[in-house]
Amino acid sequence: MKKLINDPFDMVEEMVDGFISANDDIIRRVGRRSIARLASPIPGKVGIVVGGGSGHLPAFAGYVGSGMADAAAFGNVFASPPAKPIIEATQACDSGAGVLYLYGNYAGDCLNFDKAQDRCREMGHQVQTVVLNDDVASAPPEDKHRRRGIGGLFWVFRIAGAKAEEGAPLDAVVEIAHRANSSTRTIGVGLTSCTVPANGHPTFDLGDDELELGLGIHGEPGMERKKIGPVDDLIEEMFAVLLGDVEFRGHEVALSVNGMGGTPAEELYVVYRKAKEICDREGITIRHKMVGELVTALEMAGASISLTLLDDEMNTLLGTPVNTCMYKKP
Amino acid sequence: MKKLINDPFDMVEEMVDGFISANDDIIRRVGRRSIARLASPIPGKVGIVVGGGSGHLPAFAGYVGSGMADAAAFGNVFASPPAKPIIEATQACDSGAGVLYLYGNYAGDCLNFDKAQDRCREMGHQVQTVVLNDDVASAPPEDKHRRRGIGGLFWVFRIAGAKAEEGAPLDAVVEIAHRANSSTRTIGVGLTSCTVPANGHPTFDLGDDELELGLGIHGEPGMERKKIGPVDDLIEEMFAVLLGDVEFRGHEVALSVNGMGGTPAEELYVVYRKAKEICDREGITIRHKMVGELVTALEMAGASISLTLLDDEMNTLLGTPVNTCMYKKP
Repeated sequence: MKKLINDPFDMVEEMVDGFISANDDIIRRVGRRSIARLASPIPGKVGIVVGGGSGHLPAFAGYVGSGMADAAAFGNVFASPPAKPIIEATQACDSGAGVLYLYGNYAGDCLNFDKAQDRCREMGHQVQTVVLNDDVASAPPEDKHRRRGIGGLFWVFRIAGAKAEEGAPLDAVVEIAHRANSSTRTIGVGLTSCTVPANGHPTFDLGDDELELGLGIHGEPGMERKKIGPVDDLIEEMFAVLLGDVEFRGHEVALSVNGMGGTPAEELYVVYRKAKEICDREGITIRHKMVGELVTALEMAGASISLTLLDDEMNTLLGTPVNTCMYKKP
Repeated sequence: MKKLINDPFDMVEEMVDGFISANDDIIRRVGRRSIARLASPIPGKVGIVVGGGSGHLPAFAGYVGSGMADAAAFGNVFASPPAKPIIEATQACDSGAGVLYLYGNYAGDCLNFDKAQDRCREMGHQVQTVVLNDDVASAPPEDKHRRRGIGGLFWVFRIAGAKAEEGAPLDAVVEIAHRANSSTRTIGVGLTSCTVPANGHPTFDLGDDELELGLGIHGEPGMERKKIGPVDDLIEEMFAVLLGDVEFRGHEVALSVNGMGGTPAEELYVVYRKAKEICDREGITIRHKMVGELVTALEMAGASISLTLLDDEMNTLLGTPVNTCMYKKP
C-alpha cells in the first residue's frame, strides 16, 4: 500500500489535525471529529451541517466557510460519522435560526444524522434534513429515493449555502436545497479502484483495459463494465444517461467535471471540452461551471459529470462569493 | 494506459481547448498554445509570462489571473513550449511597462524562453527573465544554478505576481522574483511513476514497497530510493534536507504541501500536520500556507514540501487577493 501515512488506523485523526491546522483562518475544532466556521454561530443565520465518510475531500469538511457550510462532521474512511460529532457541529452553528443537515444518501449517514437530529431536537434545536441523491446510475428514476449522493452534492451545498448566507429563514433554505437536489444529476466513471488504508488492498478489481460506468464513490458497482475507448464516446454515453433522466435541453445549467482523486486536471479539461460541445449541440446553456476535484474517492482514477437545472434564483445564488477551506471564488 | 483521453497526440490540443472554455471568465486564447488574462495588457502593469510543459496543472496556465501571472504558454506533455506561444503571450500582456518571464530551470525551457526573449526584444518589448530553481534534491548547494524548478514555483509566481499587480516597475518585479526564488527550497518524494500519454507506458519503475526521495516532476532521479515507512519519518528526513540548505529556523515562512497528481488530499493533510509540528519545534513560524495540488506530474503519487523564507514585503504581498483560473483567495 503506497500511501503517505503512519499507522492506517491513525490516518483520519492525523488528517483532521492537519486539516484544522492548515485552515485555521476559516475554521475551528468543535470536537474530536467536528469543525465549524470561526464566526459560528452567526446571529440570525441558518447553520448548514455537512458530513460523511473521510476519503472524499474536498467533501465534506473542505466546504465549510462563508457561502457554503457552517460546520462538518468527519467519519472514518468511507464510513458515516457517528451522531456525536454531528451533534457537536449542530451546537456550534445554531444561532437559534435553526440548522439544516445536508448529506449523501447512504444507509449509515441516514442512520447517524437522524439520530443526531432527534437528540438535537430534544435539546431544543430546530433541525431539518435534506438527503441528497444525484447519482443516476445507482437506481432507476422510479426508485429515485434509493439513489446515492455523489459529485452533484457540490452544487446543492453551494446553492443552499448561498441562500443561508443571505439570511434566509430555515424553511426557505430547506426549500431551495430540495429544489437544487431534485434538479441535479450526476454520472461517474471509474478507471481504477482505490485502497482504504485500514484494509490495505484495493476495494475491487478492474481489468487493465476496463472502466466502470456509473461507479460509486466507495466502489459501489455501476451500470456497466466496458473496454476503455476514446473519451469522447464515453462522454456521449454519460450525457445520454443524464439527458434521459431530466430534460436539460433548452435550459440553463451548472455543469461540473469532478476528478475522483487520481485523475490529472489535464484529463478533466479534455472531458470538459467534450461536455461543452455536447451542451452547445443540445441547446444547453452552461451558466456556471467547475472543473476539479469536488467529491473524490481517495486515489481512484475517474471522473463524474454533474448537471443542475437552474432557475433564476439558483443562478443568482451561484454568482455570490464563497470562501471555504477548499473552494473559493470572489 | 488508463486515461480519459482520445488520441494521445491530440490530448494537449483538446486539454487547451477545454481549459480555455472552462476559464473564459478569466482568460482568453491568444494563440494555438497561449493564453492571457481577459484584461491584458493592463495599462502601466508589468506583464508576467509563465510556461512550461503540460502535465503540471495548475502550473502553469492555472496561475493566470489577477495577482499572479498575465499570460502563459503551453508545451507538449513534459516538453517546453516552443518560442512562438511564448512570443504570443508576451505580446498579449505587454502594456509598454515590460514583461517578466518566470519558469523552471530546464534546458528546453531556457532555450525556448531565451529565443522568445531575443525575438521580443528585437520587436521592442522590454523583457527580463528569472529562472526558478527551488529543488534542493537536483544539485548540491554549490551548483545551485543547476537545480530544477518544482513545487516552490507557486510561491515565486505569487510573490512576483502580487508585486506586479501593485503597479511596481519591471526592475522591482525582477528584484523580488530573484529574492523569492533565492528564499525558496523544495524537496519532493515520489511513490509511483506517471505515464506520458504519447509514450503509453510508465516513465520509470519503482518497487511496490519503494519510494524515491527527491524525485523530479518529470521522473528525474532523486537522491535515494528507500522502503516506504511511516510518513512522519520521511517528513523529518525531508525537513532535514531543507533546513540543511537554508537556515529557516527562527524565521517566518510560507509553507506548501503539494500533491503530485495522484495523491489524495487526505494524505497531504497528514503531511501538513507533521510539517507544522516540525516547524513549531524548530522555531519556524508559518505565516502563509497552502495544501493541495500546485505543481503536479500527471497522475504521479507523491508530494513535495516547499519553504519560502519571508521578509516583511513578501509577507504582505502574500496577503493580497488572487483570482486565477485554478488558485483563488480573497
